[in-house]
Amino acid sequence: MTLTADFDIYVDLPSTMKGSHLSRNLEVVSEIVEESVREPVSSLEDLCSDITRRLLKRHEYASYSEVRTRADYFLERKTPLGNRTTERYCLMAAAQGRRDSDVSMTKSVGVEVVGMTACPCAMETIKHNRAQEGKVSSTDIPVITHNQRNRTSLLVEVPEGHEVEANDLIDLVEESMSAPTYEILKRGDEAQVVERAHLAPRFVEDVVREILSRLLKKYSDFPDRAQVRVRSDSEESIHKHNAVAERITTFGELRK
Amino acid sequence: MTLTADFDIYVDLPSTMKGSHLSRNLEVVSEIVEESVREPVSSLEDLCSDITRRLLKRHEYASYSEVRTRADYFLERKTPLGNRTTERYCLMAAAQGRRDSDVSMTKSVGVEVVGMTACPCAMETIKHNRAQEGKVSSTDIPVITHNQRNRTSLLVEVPEGHEVEANDLIDLVEESMSAPTYEILKRGDEAQVVERAHLAPRFVEDVVREILSRLLKKYSDFPDRAQVRVRSDSEESIHKHNAVAERITTFGELRK
Amino acid sequence: MTLTADFDIYVDLPSTMKGSHLSRNLEVVSEIVEESVREPVSSLEDLCSDITRRLLKRHEYASYSEVRTRADYFLERKTPLGNRTTERYCLMAAAQGRRDSDVSMTKSVGVEVVGMTACPCAMETIKHNRAQEGKVSSTDIPVITHNQRNRTSLLVEVPEGHEVEANDLIDLVEESMSAPTYEILKRGDEAQVVERAHLAPRFVEDVVREILSRLLKKYSDFPDRAQVRVRSDSEESIHKHNAVAERITTFGELRK
Amino acid sequence: MTLTADFDIYVDLPSTMKGSHLSRNLEVVSEIVEESVREPVSSLEDLCSDITRRLLKRHEYASYSEVRTRADYFLERKTPLGNRTTERYCLMAAAQGRRDSDVSMTKSVGVEVVGMTACPCAMETIKHNRAQEGKVSSTDIPVITHNQRNRTSLLVEVPEGHEVEANDLIDLVEESMSAPTYEILKRGDEAQVVERAHLAPRFVEDVVREILSRLLKKYSDFPDRAQVRVRSDSEESIHKHNAVAERITTFGELRK
Repeated sequence: MTLTADFDIYVDLPSTMKGSHLSRNLEVVSEIVEESVREPVSSLEDLCSDITRRLLKRHEYASYSEVRTRADYFLERKTPLGNRTTERYCLMAAAQGRRDSDVSMTKSVGVEVVGMTACPCAMETIKHNRAQEGKVSSTDIPVITHNQRNRTSLLVEVPEGHEVEANDLIDLVEESMSAPTYEILKRGDEAQVVERAHLAPRFVEDVVREILSRLLKKYSDFPDRAQVRVRSDSEESIHKHNAVAERITTFGELRK
Repeated sequence: MTLTADFDIYVDLPSTMKGSHLSRNLEVVSEIVEESVREPVSSLEDLCSDITRRLLKRHEYASYSEVRTRADYFLERKTPLGNRTTERYCLMAAAQGRRDSDVSMTKSVGVEVVGMTACPCAMETIKHNRAQEGKVSSTDIPVITHNQRNRTSLLVEVPEGHEVEANDLIDLVEESMSAPTYEILKRGDEAQVVERAHLAPRFVEDVVREILSRLLKKYSDFPDRAQVRVRSDSEESIHKHNAVAERITTFGELRK
Repeated sequence: MTLTADFDIYVDLPSTMKGSHLSRNLEVVSEIVEESVREPVSSLEDLCSDITRRLLKRHEYASYSEVRTRADYFLERKTPLGNRTTERYCLMAAAQGRRDSDVSMTKSVGVEVVGMTACPCAMETIKHNRAQEGKVSSTDIPVITHNQRNRTSLLVEVPEGHEVEANDLIDLVEESMSAPTYEILKRGDEAQVVERAHLAPRFVEDVVREILSRLLKKYSDFPDRAQVRVRSDSEESIHKHNAVAERITTFGELRK
Repeated sequence: MTLTADFDIYVDLPSTMKGSHLSRNLEVVSEIVEESVREPVSSLEDLCSDITRRLLKRHEYASYSEVRTRADYFLERKTPLGNRTTERYCLMAAAQGRRDSDVSMTKSVGVEVVGMTACPCAMETIKHNRAQEGKVSSTDIPVITHNQRNRTSLLVEVPEGHEVEANDLIDLVEESMSAPTYEILKRGDEAQVVERAHLAPRFVEDVVREILSRLLKKYSDFPDRAQVRVRSDSEESIHKHNAVAERITTFGELRK
């Protein structure tokens, strides 16, 4: 798959130097792009860590380097009724390199996923109101609530000797929302997606907690110091502002 | 009320001139801002038409000038249960001046409003599905559907001798959506907004039609040539793309 | 080359219908994306016109359809001293289809290019000031002025039976600025780019005129009714606002 | 002065609670907006710290709260030749409150300023090239280089018992660039701004260093733990990418 990626590239500068040789940053990226024509890169996070390493070699005065990237990404999905559709996601990756006697490297991989959240609070109030008004519907039919587009991002540190597949992260985030969304939905599918969202109403706080709990299960052998960042943004349909939940933590903290 | 406004300012350039005296544009705006400290401007569209007129005076070589502006705007509103809340809107205005023997001027005023739409199609399908499954709920309880944040803009030409209040346009747009939205909603209010939206499910096409129909009624004495532009964008909760409806027309066309 | 493209897709709606079958739009795009895996598309504008045609077939109630697209695009370039660099551009294309007894189609192709403009006015004033102060430098050395990032877009209608290469449009726009810009510039190259820009100082008005004049020469056999839109934006380094020139015209108008 | 401000508002959530009472956040902001009608707020950072304190009172389950704000801001300036012009800036402020036995509060104030940088490196190369070609100009005339729009932000912690005026920060940042920019410049003024920028060529690294050095001098009595964040972005006129320098540090670090 060919991806169009944006890069942010940093090197530090010792107090003894006036400016950084910025053209070297672009040369490193250019080299790697050219090499990738001959041999595709294995992952975005390895690409970032490769650039970081070369930056520290090329900027011999620097002791720290950081690279971050984002790229649009597409996956073929099946709708609830089994129709094919192509969905857009965003891949993210980052690497930080620190030079002491040797170079120590941290790398991370992440995704941004757009899905749907349905509000549990409004649903609860409306269910309660209807009960009071004697308009009881059968208990297995979810009542109305507000629902909206949700944008959630997850960035996970990939410890030495471990691997994280971006596709797994996309699945994990999508399953943590009220429902995934699809570009093509005929009527039957549309109804299914709406029903599914109303059967799993979630606050942004719920989405973040759900993701962290699934992450801990799936990557149970990750060391305590491995870092995680999750952020979930609901573009509230009943407000003009967004509701946001965010947690920046470590696997160690999550295990407590 | 003090507004922070952005301006786009244009003058045409005859083929005999190399460049425009751009600093004159900024001088005109600056003059008007200074005068407005002493005497507040009556309306954004009059401000635009004043700037346009002065531009044509100052750029003696120009035969056309155009000014467009946007500003954040706030109104105090009451929620369904009567609680006070302050809501954010966007005001827009524009003026075009053409110099022949005399200067002819067109001015417009507009608003951008964020509200809520609930989908009539999913609601219909789900109602039908439930009937088929024998899960009939009482007919006066709306069934679930997807709903979302909707952003609708309306720009209306203000013909000579007529007036249009931006607040009226805001009301008109807000009433044409499934429901207005509010920054502060306690539980009871939240339930009311959700119920209201589900009792008036609307496509973006419906929002545009509703606005045009109300506009024609309210400004029934506007001449046929007066122009209107409406655009409604729903940030679909079940898709990653938006649904948009737009119509650019005249009062004459609408009367047909 | 694989491009990631964004699409805006429109069909009109007769007054007798409540809503449009939006999922059909996405199905058409999806079909074409799938077919393009087997057989790459020849051009973005043909892709747009193909989508437009199928939309009119699929939405049998519609009499008008429009498709617009944008995609990031990359070209290998040589710097003034002959070093290789990869530069980012934006491709644009559009198609409009109208159904009467038959379907009539208009298609356009365009580009957005980032380059550099140096201001002729400040240069003139400073040259004049220095002459007055007796600080005359040799006449072949350009004096200082302000220069800045410029973003220029060009969209040209492609009449039936004609062809326009996006790469030609990119060259044409780049040559109409004060200088092209490059992602990798070692010192010698950097000096060359700066010198070049100061030898061709240009207002945004100049950039637009230069493009239109070159366009008329290159596509001299285009019919009078073929449309052109050029817009040049300089992110002025001495102001906080931008300077913009825009012209929307036809080959016929340009020939006058 | 009336400012239109955007707020980001956060409270933490104990693991024992499902969701946060989000409407309380908006109620607090609303209260304060209403009170400010009667009694204007003294500073944006005090406003943030007031909101933060009330949030902790209202969300009795929370132990941490954070508020960030941004607002457009305008100052009257004099151009080099003494003409009046109104310039746009951005004010920023933030507060973090932590509840233990008592509430501890940190507050910060900041600005974002748009100005101009001229590149010292291209200037040096071109000067050297001209000397080699025998085209020596008198040494007091600066040679050409590329220059561009620069956007620099500075955020400073305001320690208990100290005060920081946003206007002082704006002056400090503006003086650290190659030249300030102005909305209205007649020819004589335009030439002055260009000359000034070429007499003080600066990399983004220089801008950041200059700001930190002036800051340390001006607020010499600030405690070591007070934090500072500076970021300078030049929208390079010879590249399509930006050059960025950033430093996040403390007064203690700066004193080393």
